[in-house]
This record gives sequence, C-alpha cells and structure tokens, in this order.
Amino acid sequence: MRWSQTLIPTMKETPEGAEIPSHVLMLRAGMIHQLMAGAYTYLPLGYRALRKAEQIIRQEMDKAGAVEVHMPALTPIQLWEQTGRVEAFGDVLIKFDVRRQGKKVPMALGPTHEEIVTDLVKKFVSSYRQLPLTLYQIQTKFRNEERPRFGVLRTSEFLMKDAYSFDSTVEGLNANYDRMYAAYCTIFRRCGVDYLAVEAESGPIGGDASHEFMAIADNGEDSVLYDPKSGYAANQERAETGKRTVAKSTVEPKPLTKLHTPGVGSIEAVSKFLKCKPHQMLKTLIYTADDKPLAVLIRGDHEANENKIRRAVGAKKLALADAALVEAITGAPVGFAGPVGLKQPVPIWADDDVAGMANMIIGANEADQHYVGANLERDFQVEKFADLRNATAGDPSPRSDGKLELRHAIEIGHVFKLGTKYSEAMGAKFLDDKEQQHTIIMGCYGIGVNRILASLIETKSDANGVVWPMSIAPYEVIVSSVNAADAEVSAAADKLYGELQAAGVDTLYDDRDQRPGVKFKDADLIGIPLRVVVGGRGLKEGNLELKWRTKEAPEMIPLAGAAEAIAKLVAGERDRYR
Amino acid sequence: MRWSQTLIPTMKETPEGAEIPSHVLMLRAGMIHQLMAGAYTYLPLGYRALRKAEQIIRQEMDKAGAVEVHMPALTPIQLWEQTGRVEAFGDVLIKFDVRRQGKKVPMALGPTHEEIVTDLVKKFVSSYRQLPLTLYQIQTKFRNEERPRFGVLRTSEFLMKDAYSFDSTVEGLNANYDRMYAAYCTIFRRCGVDYLAVEAESGPIGGDASHEFMAIADNGEDSVLYDPKSGYAANQERAETGKRTVAKSTVEPKPLTKLHTPGVGSIEAVSKFLKCKPHQMLKTLIYTADDKPLAVLIRGDHEANENKIRRAVGAKKLALADAALVEAITGAPVGFAGPVGLKQPVPIWADDDVAGMANMIIGANEADQHYVGANLERDFQVEKFADLRNATAGDPSPRSDGKLELRHAIEIGHVFKLGTKYSEAMGAKFLDDKEQQHTIIMGCYGIGVNRILASLIETKSDANGVVWPMSIAPYEVIVSSVNAADAEVSAAADKLYGELQAAGVDTLYDDRDQRPGVKFKDADLIGIPLRVVVGGRGLKEGNLELKWRTKEAPEMIPLAGAAEAIAKLVAGERDRYR
Repeated sequence: MRWSQTLIPTMKETPEGAEIPSHVLMLRAGMIHQLMAGAYTYLPLGYRALRKAEQIIRQEMDKAGAVEVHMPALTPIQLWEQTGRVEAFGDVLIKFDVRRQGKKVPMALGPTHEEIVTDLVKKFVSSYRQLPLTLYQIQTKFRNEERPRFGVLRTSEFLMKDAYSFDSTVEGLNANYDRMYAAYCTIFRRCGVDYLAVEAESGPIGGDASHEFMAIADNGEDSVLYDPKSGYAANQERAETGKRTVAKSTVEPKPLTKLHTPGVGSIEAVSKFLKCKPHQMLKTLIYTADDKPLAVLIRGDHEANENKIRRAVGAKKLALADAALVEAITGAPVGFAGPVGLKQPVPIWADDDVAGMANMIIGANEADQHYVGANLERDFQVEKFADLRNATAGDPSPRSDGKLELRHAIEIGHVFKLGTKYSEAMGAKFLDDKEQQHTIIMGCYGIGVNRILASLIETKSDANGVVWPMSIAPYEVIVSSVNAADAEVSAAADKLYGELQAAGVDTLYDDRDQRPGVKFKDADLIGIPLRVVVGGRGLKEGNLELKWRTKEAPEMIPLAGAAEAIAKLVAGERDRYR
Repeated sequence: MRWSQTLIPTMKETPEGAEIPSHVLMLRAGMIHQLMAGAYTYLPLGYRALRKAEQIIRQEMDKAGAVEVHMPALTPIQLWEQTGRVEAFGDVLIKFDVRRQGKKVPMALGPTHEEIVTDLVKKFVSSYRQLPLTLYQIQTKFRNEERPRFGVLRTSEFLMKDAYSFDSTVEGLNANYDRMYAAYCTIFRRCGVDYLAVEAESGPIGGDASHEFMAIADNGEDSVLYDPKSGYAANQERAETGKRTVAKSTVEPKPLTKLHTPGVGSIEAVSKFLKCKPHQMLKTLIYTADDKPLAVLIRGDHEANENKIRRAVGAKKLALADAALVEAITGAPVGFAGPVGLKQPVPIWADDDVAGMANMIIGANEADQHYVGANLERDFQVEKFADLRNATAGDPSPRSDGKLELRHAIEIGHVFKLGTKYSEAMGAKFLDDKEQQHTIIMGCYGIGVNRILASLIETKSDANGVVWPMSIAPYEVIVSSVNAADAEVSAAADKLYGELQAAGVDTLYDDRDQRPGVKFKDADLIGIPLRVVVGGRGLKEGNLELKWRTKEAPEMIPLAGAAEAIAKLVAGERDRYR
C-alpha cells in the first residue's frame, strides 16, 4: 500500500485526554479515532493489526477443533431474563424496544452469548452422539461502560472471540478446557504477547474453575500475585497465600478503653481521627453464610475475600449482612461493629494475621464509639483462624518458600469451566446411550481481540513509538524513499515495492514527498518491524539501508537482489511467531 | 472437517413459516437458525459461505484501491440529527439511551455510515493532496424491519460492505464510480451470481446517479424493466419508456354525466362500484412542486412516478399536497379530485397515455361524486403531456424498437454518486492548490453480503437442494464413506480426507455411520460441488465414485492418485471464478 493512497493520520503531540501509552500511541500512530466515549473507529493501520490478531485466533481455534458460527448482536430480552442476567448485568446490558407493526419488541445487544448459544444447542443437540461440540465466533460485543477510558482497553463496543464447549462428561469438559488453554497459550505466543495464565475466580459468569490470561503491564487494571520461584500466579481475588506463621504479639497489653469517635466509621476516618495506622485496627464484618450470621475479623489494612470466607466456612452462599441485621447483632449502626460485647452471639472467624495483633482498635458496638487496647483471648475469642483475605505483595507463596509479588496486568483472555449453570437454567439436555437424560456440561472461553493490540503497545513500545511483532504488524516492511521527487529514487523505490509485493511481503510504501526526518519518525511511530530506505548516497552506490525497529544501527545491502534478501529476513522473523 | 465434529442440522421437512427457496433451503441445509424475527444465527455451513463471499469482496475492494477501516455500530445520535436522518429513517433507525454516571447518553445503531465516515474524513482530510481516498468496511448493520421476512433477505441485522469515495473533482468521482462499478461486476461474477446492473433512483440516500446490482429472481421484491434487445435495464422507479405514440381514441364520446358514488374514493373501490376497469379511469393527483400546486393526470391502472414528474416540471422538490390544500383546490375531500371544474386553477400535466383515453371516469371535485364520459379538450385541457408514470411490461424500450420486460429481482449491491449531500451538511471541505476551500465530492457503494447467498440459492438450487458455485461453497468437496463402520472403508476415507486437506482442498468428510441414502440426500441438500464416495463395490475394485452436484451421472476414478486428480478438478472449477 502506498502511504499517499491510504489514511495514516499520525500526530506529533500527545492527544488530550489520553493517559496511557497504548491510548496515546494508537491515536498518534493514526490507528484509531474516537467516534464518541467508548466507541472507536479503527483506521487502516489499526484495522490491519486487529485482523492479523483475529486471523491467528481463528487458525488456532480451528486447529483445536472448534467450529465457527456467528450469532446475532440483537438478542431477545427473554433469554437474559431466563438466567437472571438482566439484573446481574444492570446498566452494562444495552437494552431497548424496537417498534414493529405498532408493537414494542424488547431486545438487548449481546454482551456475551452464553444464553444464545445454549438455546441454540438445546434446539439441535439431543444425543450424546452429537457431543462433544465446541462452537466459537469472533464478533462485536456491546457492554455499556459507566466510564469508558484507556482507549480501546475499556469501551462499550469491542471485538471478542467467544467459544463454548458442550460435553456429556466432566472428563470431556476437562479435555476441552485443556485444549482451549493450550490454544490460548499458542495464540498469545504467536501474537507476541508476554502473558501469564493465572488462576481466577469465575466471577459473575459463574462455574467451577477458571484461568485468566494476563499481559503484565504497569497500567493494567487487574492485580495479579506471582511467585517467580514456583511460577504460581493468580488473580488477586483468587490468590492463596502460603501458611502464614503468625507469632503472637509480645507487646505489653494495654487496658481496654472506650473512646468517643463521633461520626467516624470507616478505617480511613478512624485512623485519621485517632492518628493510628490501618494495620493497628481490626475490621469486623457481619455476613450471612447460607443465611446464618457470621462475624469475620480482618486486619485494617487488608481486604476481606468473600470467596475464601465462603469456602472456609463451607457455605454455598455468602453475602454482607444488611443494615438491619448488623444493628440487630451489634446493637449499633454499620461502621461500629467489633468482637467485644456483641448483642447476639455469632460465630467469629478471623484471618490468620489477626493472631499477631495486639492493642487493637475495634468498633465498640455502639454508635460513635470505638475501643482501643483490645486484645485476643483477654477481650474476645475467635472460633477459627484461616486465610480469609486477598493476598498481597510480600505474602508467602502457597507453592514455594518464596514470596508473592504484586503485578498489574491487562486481562486478554479467560477460560471457564461453566459446568451446568446455563444448560440447567435453559434446559439443554442430552440422552446417554441408555436413553437417560442428563444436563449438558459447558465451558466458555473468551479473548478480547482489541486488548491484544493495546497490551502489545503497553508492554513493547519505546520512546519513539509502537514496536510491533512481525505477526501483528499492520505491514511487515516499510519502504521509505528519500527525496521522492527525484525520478531515479522513485523509480528504484517503485520497483522494490513491486518486487516485495510480488514476493508476498506486506509492504507499506512511504511515497510522500516529505523530509527524511519526518518519514523516519513516522516509520518509528507506527512501529513497522523493518524499514528500508531508498535514496541518498546509498542508492548512488547501489545500496539500500535496512533498519530493524528494535535495533539502533542500520545496515546496508546491495540493491541488486534486495527484494529476495528482505523477503528472506521477513520469513525468518515470521517463523518466530508460528 | 468431519461431519461428526461440526453442527450441520439438516432437516427433511419444509420448516414452518418459510415461503421462498432461499429461506427453506438455508434452514433445511442447516446453514442458519432464527434467534428471533429478523435475526439469524449463521451455523457453520452458512458462516463458511458468508465468509467466502466476504473474502472475495475484500480482495476486489483492495484491488480497486479502497482501504479497509472499521467504524463502530454504536453512533452518537447527534450526527444523524445533523443531516435530518433521524426523521428520514424513522422506526428503521434503532435508537436508545445508555446510562452513564447518572446521565442518559443517546445513541443509534448504524444502519449505514455516511454521517460517520464524513465526520471522520472531515477531521483528517484538509488538502487536495490527501484526495482521492476510498474507505470501506465489511460490518454488521442494523435496520429495524417493520415485518422481517424471507429468511436472510429482510432482517434487522445484516452484513454489509459499505465503501465511501472522497474526491476533489467531479472527474475524480466519476473515475472512482467507474472503478467501483467494475469491481462490483467482478465480485458478483466471482460469486457466481447472475446479475444485472440497472439504472436506479438514488432514493433516500440522495445524490446524482446510481446503479443497482440485481440478481434476477422470481421471489425478488424489486421490479426491473429490461430490454433484451439493447441491454437497457432499470429499476421500475427509474426506468424510462421509449416515446409512446398514443393515438387519439376513435370511440364515440359520451355525454359527461355525474354519478353518486358514496364513500367510494380509491381506484379499486370506484372500479368495483361502477363495474369498470382501472384503465378506463383517470387518477388526478395534486402535488406541490417547489411549493406551487400542480395537478397530474395518470391512467387508473398506472403508477405515478414522482421523480419523473419532478424532473418534467423542472422542480427541485415535489410532494403530494396535504388534505387541506387538496380541499382548497378541488373543493372536495381527498379521493374525489378530477380535472373538470377545479375550484382554483392550477397547471394540469398528464402522462402520455392519457392522450389516448376517451369517456373517462374522473372525480367530480365533490364528496361522493364522480363523472363518467369525461373527454379531453371537450371537458378539460391539459397543459403538457410527458412520461410521468412508472414503466411497465410491454412499454416501448427507450433504447431500441423492442419492448420492456418486467423482471423480479433481489438487490445485492448499489453504487451512488452522492455529490456533496453529506459533505455539505457536515462541513467536510478541502483546500485546493490555490488555497481555495471547496466541499469534498462523495460516492457511496454498498453490497448486502447475506443477500449474495440468498440470491444464489433463489436462482441456482434444484429440487434436491442448494447448488453452490465452487467459489462460495462452504466446502469444495464432500467425502462420503459408505458403511463407515467397516474398518477398510473408514481407513480409505480417512486417508483420502487427509490427502485432500494436505492438497489445500476445502473438504467436508461425512464420517457418520448412516445409510448411504441419507448421506447422499444430505450432500445434495447442502450443495457441495463435488461428491466423492468411498466404499462398496467401487472400493473393492480400487475405485472411487465422483459426482458433480450439477450432473446426473457419477463417474469412477482409481483410488490410487485420487486426491491429486480431485485437487486438479477443484482447481479447474476454482479458475472459473477468479
């Protein structure tokens, strides 16, 4: 493609409102343009990169035995009501009525397609003979973002690869899950992304087991705990900690003293008011576990982890108690709960770290009152200690004697063992070889295609611009003519461009009549892996200048046979991403 | 792909509610599934065919110098308000508010992208040096259908290729238009569609000149007038007629007589009430042409053509008069207008055919009254005769001494010279080489990708099912094993399948343990061009059976070297669609 015939609106300045490198550089490199908050047009360079990622995903899905389909974006609201997800998604689900023959027809734009695909399979699959089956699509999804931001990382419309597996046995699901997991590893490797597969909670989509594929990036919104020693990695919501051996405090116990703390309920407010640190304070959280009340104690600087609590107490359902229940149990409004002097006796569980605390600051179960100098055993009893909080940096690894590190990351993929959550709700069943009916067992597998581009830029760009891997680069080679107005130069460049195209090299030809400095800066900014300069003294001497985007120094090669030599270099680099 | 690993839910029976062959066969061949009225899931076979059409379109667009982009489906309502198309589209435009941070944000789903692309180009193009530029996308479009029907022919969500050209001169637009026209001819030829490029009115999108690409099909909703002698073809709305030499009637004039026709206003009602034929009646239509009133006379069995009327009288704007104006001019409610005794004198124009009428039945400009026996000159005068009606079958051709034939057709593509309609409304301008500002000149070019499939099936299927051209067929070859449970058969079939895949032949392997009759019927139904049967006596004799979908008789070829022979046959057939 000739630069003069396409649309690559590069910019010198950092665009207003863009904060992170991927957003800044995608705008500056002329890859995207914001149509409105949360919706971007992909310009020619951006769309080429996106389609290359899409094509790698498609190839690996096909190899993994998944079959491509395409479901509508317009979906009937009834299917979402059937699984309770109209409420679960809330304002994220874009829903509306269309008018047909004087009637209103309620619809929603698909934010994901579990309901739709389960309904489809329910209609066409009835026997174990038709299973296993894995369907996928690469399709635009719609999720209203309360605050769209970070360029293409958080938008209301995005390209997603979503796959769904259907099995008659748990072993089948496990095999499908492993196959998808392996395909994901191949996809991200081929896209040149440095990824980490981390254990994850399954979140609102539900199910039994899941992994997230994360690109480790400083500007990522997700937090991952990683043990370099064992390779253990997990989403912060999910991460275990190794057994914390917490020594009992040897500090001299102080007397338990009640203090007036008017209108001061949160950890932050109390620590400000009493001039103490959050880790000296104790949070007392009242939950209902399978509808029975429970108090959970967590050190003030830690975050309770509801999944860990639910699993520790062996409950199916765990929820924070409402204000009325908190008041009934503590005798005080929310914000002043503490383990000393509860109105109603409830089981008290504590996170392991609480065992090492002394002279704690706790709520006094009275409005506007706190205790200082609270101590375990002397002032209150704990029924059981366990790992009940989010892991954090410095925690012992659950898999080695090392420590966990906290990393920021961008979620680019997610694999779930759904089990029968959707097939049960929607009645998708099959008959086994004895004519017995069972519920189909499902998995689901997503990739955010746009995020592959953004995470590559977040992690691989440099001060001069984007640095694409050969597999995703919108063009593999850029031919820049120096002094394009010179007939000899443009003839040589035209010829090379033609030869490279004929050799199957994806070539961008910067044929603009611009100063070399402008052309070289633009070539660096848009990140094409290999730059070929035609012109100047080199050309007079029968040479071309080659420069890899990742290297400082250029090299000269003879003009004769240049296209063949360049094609060979490109092929070698392509091989790294096969 | 093995049949057992994909999802091809063929059906024996004609599904309920499906009326036309493309709808029936796409359902029966397991290509599509209706999620709700107007929204279809593309199942594996359907999606493969759709993607093949998409890929041909992409290749030809790239060759024609168009550059691919991707605009969002979510669009800000403001852009549609700027051009008045919120009203023009009415209920067809799917619009809604999303909630963000407590505020409502109004949006519309793009039914087409003139506004969006013009806004984009306005932001990035400012100089003649950046022109010409042609952008295209292949993207899901949303248009609410009042009554979705005919399978994928009329849906609320569909795949469209839309391209937009931007030029600094009219010559540039003409060159771009011609290039796109030629690309469309190549695309439809490569897709195997028998198409006709017909002259068309530009309709609500507006502009100066346009052609529609039509697949001639009995079930098409469009009407085309075609002169086989000259090759002239035009949409019915647009079609000219040759000069109609209308002889004055020689019938004896009857006296003008007023009749009481209570509550009877329409042509149909009057002809029923008076037991006469529509061609004996005269329609009198009151228009405003550039806000001045005008009466137009059309024979009762003909349809007025507003574009012809507008052009004939030399007006910029033409609209039917409202009820108040009709009453002011005729003195009667709508339905009883006639050229005799109008209350206010207005210019009276008549279609050429009116010159040959005698003893006409006309409205009497009085409620519930008609005249019979009305005659030209004696009873009323016509200011001018002209071609003011839709052409119809039997009309003289405007390009030869032949007659026009009426054909039904499916619109599959459309090219428009838009001119400055959108660039003017949205302020998309450029500076010429003398720093003078001008408005960018646009063209737009659409293809309904789903309709390519539907029109192929409408025109090429037979009693046994779909008949795909090699270029669009979801698979090029189907290998059917006869007695798949036989180890020798399945080993031979497995081997052939592997070899065909290695040879780059798109192969579907029907590995099901089903009776040959079922397999052959399914192979015919889904329309794969070449069927290869492995098994039976043939295999024992070292042979395979080949059968083209379009031929009656199979032929035998030796098993040894079969893959190579089949690949050669497929390559030959592919060449027909290059």
